[in-house]
Amino acid sequence: MAVELFELVGDDDRRFSPYCWRARMALAHKGIEADYIPVGFTEKDRIAFSGQQLVPVLRDGEKIVSDSWEIACYLEDAYPDHPTLFGGAIGRGQARFFHEWAPHMSAPIMRTMLKDIFDRVRPEDRDYFRASRKARFGKTLEELNATRGDYRDAIDKGVAPLRALLTYQPFLCGDAPAYADYILFGHFQTAAIMSPEIFVAPGDALYEWCEKLRDLFGGLGRQFGGMPD
Amino acid sequence: MAVELFELVGDDDRRFSPYCWRARMALAHKGIEADYIPVGFTEKDRIAFSGQQLVPVLRDGEKIVSDSWEIACYLEDAYPDHPTLFGGAIGRGQARFFHEWAPHMSAPIMRTMLKDIFDRVRPEDRDYFRASRKARFGKTLEELNATRGDYRDAIDKGVAPLRALLTYQPFLCGDAPAYADYILFGHFQTAAIMSPEIFVAPGDALYEWCEKLRDLFGGLGRQFGGMPD
Repeated sequence: MAVELFELVGDDDRRFSPYCWRARMALAHKGIEADYIPVGFTEKDRIAFSGQQLVPVLRDGEKIVSDSWEIACYLEDAYPDHPTLFGGAIGRGQARFFHEWAPHMSAPIMRTMLKDIFDRVRPEDRDYFRASRKARFGKTLEELNATRGDYRDAIDKGVAPLRALLTYQPFLCGDAPAYADYILFGHFQTAAIMSPEIFVAPGDALYEWCEKLRDLFGGLGRQFGGMPD
Repeated sequence: MAVELFELVGDDDRRFSPYCWRARMALAHKGIEADYIPVGFTEKDRIAFSGQQLVPVLRDGEKIVSDSWEIACYLEDAYPDHPTLFGGAIGRGQARFFHEWAPHMSAPIMRTMLKDIFDRVRPEDRDYFRASRKARFGKTLEELNATRGDYRDAIDKGVAPLRALLTYQPFLCGDAPAYADYILFGHFQTAAIMSPEIFVAPGDALYEWCEKLRDLFGGLGRQFGGMPD
């Protein structure tokens, strides 16, 4: 049986979860063929077999792994002869930092585009999305959207170290991409797929980096609904 | 001729530059004996041979290297059979991120303790320190010090990803320390050596990590003037 990855889906087959992009890129980096199974916000029954409620979920034969970090570690350890995601123990240790840092880096971007996401989730998931964000932020999507322009400085501040790094070298992991690149890339994929707002533009080192990552694995990062031309 | 490291010194032989601590820990990690030569803020003539004005400067025979990152890369490449600082190309690429991130992480801590540093640099360097900080911040040390309490939230926000990581694993580089740990550790050494303020306290994962790093290499991180008991 092929490896299966269960991942979040929006309207128009948009695969938009940053965490699912991590797993998707990790599988491609390892050269592992997989079936990608879409799961809407209100289809948690489809991953009930995993014993928890969040995507991504990986099923590899009898093995079931949830949580993007655990999936990366599983793939690295179960497929040691495939291209490495971490480059050894030090690389793995450092990569975990980006798992912790990514939500801080991306929070102002995600905060800005909540209404854009709402507009692009499946129609049957919109009530769920609206209620869950109200619970998380204490405000309606419309109230949150009204202040979206307030986050421009925070966005620039959040990405500043990554932007500086990518001015120095082509990838976070050096001359070639590896898992830590994919950790952060997922958030920019979410933004590109779910929002018409331009968060990174040509001439920005972040833009060039995103474009190179989208070109990998036969243009995997461009094959989904919602990607700009 | 022994390897020499030229590093910043304050009053009471305090070796307090975060960038010099990176080089010092890198040398110790590599197991390379070195002479450590103190340089005050107003003794730039002592490093004129390096063709620039900043410490750390490493001299290894005919080779002269300035800039903490260049020093780490030089040591890794010139001493490949010694313990590794990066663990390979991916680890080196990722480590460079911390070089970029460290000033962002530590800025609110450094902003808080400018007057403390002033009080602990060599008396003959105080005019230089006062004037250079006035030029950088546009305010006097006393004006800056009056608002030092305003940075508590920014400090916590700055270190949050590192603190979260160290709750998950003992070192930034995983189960054992390597160069990326030293990049960040240097800033906490500066704070411990130059300020009476407690930025990290027992019970904090950051504190436990600092203590473990200070214990390395025969307690190297405790051997200098100004360290608390």
